[in-house]
Amino acid sequence: MVIILKPRASEQEREHIIKVIKDAGLSPHVLLGEERTVIAVIGDERALQKQPLSALPGVEKAIPILSPYKLVSRDFKKENTVIDVRGIKIGGERIVVIAGPCSVETNHLLSSIAAEIKKGGASILRGGAFKPRSSPYSFQGLGEEGLEYLSEARRLTGLPIITEILDPRDLPMMAKHADILQIGARNMQNFRLLAEVGAQDKPVMLKRGLSATIKEFLLSAEYIMAAGNANVILCERGIRTFETATRNTLDLSAIPVLRKRTHLPIIIDPSHAVGQTDLVPPMAKAAIAAGADGLMIEVHSNPEEAFCDGEQAMLPKDFNQLMDELRKIAAAVGRTL
Amino acid sequence: MVIILKPRASEQEREHIIKVIKDAGLSPHVLLGEERTVIAVIGDERALQKQPLSALPGVEKAIPILSPYKLVSRDFKKENTVIDVRGIKIGGERIVVIAGPCSVETNHLLSSIAAEIKKGGASILRGGAFKPRSSPYSFQGLGEEGLEYLSEARRLTGLPIITEILDPRDLPMMAKHADILQIGARNMQNFRLLAEVGAQDKPVMLKRGLSATIKEFLLSAEYIMAAGNANVILCERGIRTFETATRNTLDLSAIPVLRKRTHLPIIIDPSHAVGQTDLVPPMAKAAIAAGADGLMIEVHSNPEEAFCDGEQAMLPKDFNQLMDELRKIAAAVGRTL
Amino acid sequence: MVIILKPRASEQEREHIIKVIKDAGLSPHVLLGEERTVIAVIGDERALQKQPLSALPGVEKAIPILSPYKLVSRDFKKENTVIDVRGIKIGGERIVVIAGPCSVETNHLLSSIAAEIKKGGASILRGGAFKPRSSPYSFQGLGEEGLEYLSEARRLTGLPIITEILDPRDLPMMAKHADILQIGARNMQNFRLLAEVGAQDKPVMLKRGLSATIKEFLLSAEYIMAAGNANVILCERGIRTFETATRNTLDLSAIPVLRKRTHLPIIIDPSHAVGQTDLVPPMAKAAIAAGADGLMIEVHSNPEEAFCDGEQAMLPKDFNQLMDELRKIAAAVGRTL
Amino acid sequence: MVIILKPRASEQEREHIIKVIKDAGLSPHVLLGEERTVIAVIGDERALQKQPLSALPGVEKAIPILSPYKLVSRDFKKENTVIDVRGIKIGGERIVVIAGPCSVETNHLLSSIAAEIKKGGASILRGGAFKPRSSPYSFQGLGEEGLEYLSEARRLTGLPIITEILDPRDLPMMAKHADILQIGARNMQNFRLLAEVGAQDKPVMLKRGLSATIKEFLLSAEYIMAAGNANVILCERGIRTFETATRNTLDLSAIPVLRKRTHLPIIIDPSHAVGQTDLVPPMAKAAIAAGADGLMIEVHSNPEEAFCDGEQAMLPKDFNQLMDELRKIAAAVGRTL
Repeated sequence: MVIILKPRASEQEREHIIKVIKDAGLSPHVLLGEERTVIAVIGDERALQKQPLSALPGVEKAIPILSPYKLVSRDFKKENTVIDVRGIKIGGERIVVIAGPCSVETNHLLSSIAAEIKKGGASILRGGAFKPRSSPYSFQGLGEEGLEYLSEARRLTGLPIITEILDPRDLPMMAKHADILQIGARNMQNFRLLAEVGAQDKPVMLKRGLSATIKEFLLSAEYIMAAGNANVILCERGIRTFETATRNTLDLSAIPVLRKRTHLPIIIDPSHAVGQTDLVPPMAKAAIAAGADGLMIEVHSNPEEAFCDGEQAMLPKDFNQLMDELRKIAAAVGRTL
Repeated sequence: MVIILKPRASEQEREHIIKVIKDAGLSPHVLLGEERTVIAVIGDERALQKQPLSALPGVEKAIPILSPYKLVSRDFKKENTVIDVRGIKIGGERIVVIAGPCSVETNHLLSSIAAEIKKGGASILRGGAFKPRSSPYSFQGLGEEGLEYLSEARRLTGLPIITEILDPRDLPMMAKHADILQIGARNMQNFRLLAEVGAQDKPVMLKRGLSATIKEFLLSAEYIMAAGNANVILCERGIRTFETATRNTLDLSAIPVLRKRTHLPIIIDPSHAVGQTDLVPPMAKAAIAAGADGLMIEVHSNPEEAFCDGEQAMLPKDFNQLMDELRKIAAAVGRTL
Repeated sequence: MVIILKPRASEQEREHIIKVIKDAGLSPHVLLGEERTVIAVIGDERALQKQPLSALPGVEKAIPILSPYKLVSRDFKKENTVIDVRGIKIGGERIVVIAGPCSVETNHLLSSIAAEIKKGGASILRGGAFKPRSSPYSFQGLGEEGLEYLSEARRLTGLPIITEILDPRDLPMMAKHADILQIGARNMQNFRLLAEVGAQDKPVMLKRGLSATIKEFLLSAEYIMAAGNANVILCERGIRTFETATRNTLDLSAIPVLRKRTHLPIIIDPSHAVGQTDLVPPMAKAAIAAGADGLMIEVHSNPEEAFCDGEQAMLPKDFNQLMDELRKIAAAVGRTL
Repeated sequence: MVIILKPRASEQEREHIIKVIKDAGLSPHVLLGEERTVIAVIGDERALQKQPLSALPGVEKAIPILSPYKLVSRDFKKENTVIDVRGIKIGGERIVVIAGPCSVETNHLLSSIAAEIKKGGASILRGGAFKPRSSPYSFQGLGEEGLEYLSEARRLTGLPIITEILDPRDLPMMAKHADILQIGARNMQNFRLLAEVGAQDKPVMLKRGLSATIKEFLLSAEYIMAAGNANVILCERGIRTFETATRNTLDLSAIPVLRKRTHLPIIIDPSHAVGQTDLVPPMAKAAIAAGADGLMIEVHSNPEEAFCDGEQAMLPKDFNQLMDELRKIAAAVGRTL
């Protein structure tokens, strides 16, 4: 940690800061500049995490040097984490495509979509049984019934299933059905939920919050890993900016940034990011070109009657055509799909 | 709702859209322009909320005219909501000041801070027993012990207490102690938690999410009211922008915007918004000048040893001086404090 | 245009609005809903551009239906614009790569970089002679001397040159040297400069402002076309968001959005967007996968001694390797490079 | 400056960095930590401004300690700058109100508005003769004719006038009429224009760019001062965020942040920030409560026929009433108006 003192910090304030650093078991090095005094702190600065130095009188700014996360970081684990879900490897050389409707609606519809995306080459089925909706008057999902339809679709197609968990109290019910638990963007900092999914052993896909920095995103993943679950998948799904031409702004540069900082697999959800069907294919291709380990794409056989987000769902036939195009991009970056 | 068709929408698509509108029990009015066709929908457009028209082929954009919230809106209830908490009125002519430490630390410290802020004129005590922290390695709060200290401080000072709830499972424990339940910014769209606090009868203070629009903020309040609890207090605490000179950007224009749209009381938390003690007083004054019904301010008698957010906590003596200045501003806008 | 009246707009206000619409030569259609009255305006709403209706008493919101730009729009010109610069076609099937240093430094250095990027397959040379810098104490460019070095590099390599213009007064000097004039992000709404480059005949590359919406970006391009110059190239170079892990956030979804709305060629500048050399290659690949017509990449043979932006400049050998990888992506999307 | 090395920076890289620092006449202090090496640089780091260290191999991050601006900073000049414009003092104890229409329209209208706002207590008249408009088809201002009307209004009322300059070539014409030159938000980083207004002696009001950080805002002011003109007035007018309920988000916390960092006067323009007349009064009051030195408010006697921004212009009678309310707030913070 580097501590920059205020221009007119007193000697007494300086001595007090030095004492606090020493009391934490760290070594302060004082550098008297012409205009400012800087104190460099040698040692594991995480010792200072509980009582931040920035509140000490005379301190202008305390700049941490080490990253605040540990288990998720590439310093901690050099090789990429590969997560095995019923034989599907997430984070390996092969790019994984998760597809399916926004919400589970009927048993028949879900199974037929599942069969179609499987034909197209998707390897995991998505579908929401519990839906977080901005309005209390929007469709909130079928609940447990939806989970049963997902299980049924898996039985018929063999595709593992991913579905969103909203509440720690749903965990036992979820555990009976889901292969991967999804934490949605709105719950990225629902720390209790993170701790709970961290304390069970199903893989967890964590979506980046709408206004979460990459540092905060990784700290939320750290919550899950710190609770004992090493199978965390990261998913970028668009951030909130001033631009309204797209629902959100897909931050593809998060891919190489995350790749440098963490060993965890990186999935991109272009459907939620752009919010319009015809913008999904170019962004899906771009995600793979930028190095994503997988994609999550909304597919619905009758988008206009979808209970949610119909305007961003692809038709199965368009999805299948996209898959063909994605295979070419995957090959161009030395991967398969 | 106004529906704008794509430039080259077919007649068949148009007829289909008209049919969907009629099937929902609404009346479509088609206006053929030179370049575009527009369909105006007469009737309660909330009938279309479950199946958004924007996914229909031929639709370029569907623009809602009515606000998506109802119970929180001023159309629904003209006069301001005033909430009574142990005799303290929130939303009335008198401006309410909530003060106290970020987190509850020791029994003695809390009670002494409570006594001091009471002397200064604060009418509600704040203090976190459960803290949502970005990092799993930061102090997470004392839990139930913290709630007991809060109760004890109330017993000694008579000040009602507000504290944050993170998890629906904590509700029974919370109900024993808190006078007002706080939903933090990170949980503004934790819809399960909103529904639960809506289903009990303690007043709820809902903080605006870091990147929540005012519409989304009001929709989250609608969740609480729709579940049965009419005592909702709104709290603006800074939004996330590109500016890094302050922790967040305090959006004071939210005050007049909310005032027009809703009957609910509006509280401003300048401490979390700016993140630095010396910026709190000017923003507290500005909030009252802009018409806020109250303030939430962090006060700690020893900020440098605070377990969290010490850099933004005011000393009791500075808080008391600020209160004197705020009284003048309150008088200048025709209110008391 | 669709005009939504306030809930309690008077009949007199409504009549006045109708009169204003008729006076502008347009036809108002009044739709009385249960809760709101809506007036749909048929005719070319651009007639109302000078005196916006939103200021009329009783109007809550006036929603334009037509896009405010015309010449740049795909409605106006269906086929893609292809711009020929000394035989290099921008906007055609072949993807164009513009490369070179941030600023022109010495004659020798520039020519040697030009020779290297030509070998790698770049087809246009970039280099700033006039540099817009945040600080008055940073290097501001060599000025006319820099332009002469650019001309010399073109003479030696045959590569056309692009360079930034900051001031309309520099136009005659620029015209002697540049093949393409660049308008930088900070000048995207320097409307006088836009009008001037629109009144001459060299092609213009317009960079998107840091916080410009796509609509504003296209309106700035419209300024140039409205002044008579149809050879406008659009360049996305990152927008400003809350994320600080990258210098800016590269908005690749702008590519398909612009493609739908405009016929103008679209170039991506990943170097300025990410601000770090090692993040440039993945974003360059993603840009091509998303459908960009070209790239602009900073290359410097000695980044650590570059007068500006050294941290984002690629070494020529790394650039050449990137070009090989880009060729594969181009082929995967059915284009050449 | 503090330089943080990459985790695996080589000894050779470290030695090279040390050499570069010494060559610049500064002293490096190397601190070997367990996980990272840090080099603290003692001396005036502005010596490193031309060749940033961040491009050196082995450097992860170079963190500047000193602010990059000098003349505008409070370190450079402790007491507030007070600017005298025809006897009106900007930056003193008395709060200054600038009012008038967005654009100059007719001679008669301008003079009558000027007379009205003078009666209300405004001390400076605003009015645009050259208007920067997003669309080339919007009203662009009357040009020199508008300047003459402004001069005439000054002759009649005695109010000094402020008007926007868009182009350095207009300077001689401007100099004949304006008392204060305004640089608009879109031109905040039009560095040529900044240098030109810095080289003449009329006071300059610089508006903050829509997405300019406070640091960039002050660097733009530094351009003007570095060119020789010390009479710079800063104006915050709203920043661009995700929120669409207001045109922009007025960043009032910029007032105390700027107050700490600079000696220059601070003006707030609530009209452009919020974009709706009824939101202007609360934000005007808040600005004064937060410590602004002045306000800039749009007033028009017939907003619905205003050529621009009619929806945010106040009627003279409403403006006069607001002035009465502002006087009370000014008194409450110990100032006059």
